[in-house]
Amino acid sequence: MTSLSENKCEACRADAPKLSELEFQALKVQIPHWQLIEQDGVKQLLRVFTFANFADAFLFTQRVADIAEQEGHHPAILLEWGKVTVRWWTHKIGGLHRNDVIMAAKTDAI
Amino acid sequence: MTSLSENKCEACRADAPKLSELEFQALKVQIPHWQLIEQDGVKQLLRVFTFANFADAFLFTQRVADIAEQEGHHPAILLEWGKVTVRWWTHKIGGLHRNDVIMAAKTDAI
Repeated sequence: MTSLSENKCEACRADAPKLSELEFQALKVQIPHWQLIEQDGVKQLLRVFTFANFADAFLFTQRVADIAEQEGHHPAILLEWGKVTVRWWTHKIGGLHRNDVIMAAKTDAI
Repeated sequence: MTSLSENKCEACRADAPKLSELEFQALKVQIPHWQLIEQDGVKQLLRVFTFANFADAFLFTQRVADIAEQEGHHPAILLEWGKVTVRWWTHKIGGLHRNDVIMAAKTDAI
């Protein structure tokens, strides 16, 4: 079995299906540190990463930005002193796609 | 009169005074695009900057991070596709210091 972080995002259309509860639970075990949250009615994956200072937090932000550009799928990244909060979701479908779980796993792999 | 963006942040202690309403209003005219918000009881300056894509939004984030490191004063920067939301406040005093207005002006100057 290849790990999720080695998967590629697939092109996503507005009519792509959101992950079902069952599909999500099956994938969630591979990203145990991510929380499922709901913001403005949209399900998102959230994880807070902590660092010793601002510079390290920025370097992590840069690496997440790099993988986002590589995959053409972009998160919200909140950069603060010693802390980066990453949220993944799929704007086009207003919720979670398999791509988001892949990106969460890729973020963990950083 | 030198512009605010050319000022340097001064070292800030936990017992440094917050800006009074009058002081804030006098400085606010120099940063007209910033909103005064209150988050968890802490006054903050917020501005949303928009961009054509994620790469440009990231480059801006990088430049804000650079001035933050130069001045030793760090904001919260929310990076999203085509959008960066910057918030300045002073953690040590739980509110706004003159430094925050200086940093907002420096952010505008980017």
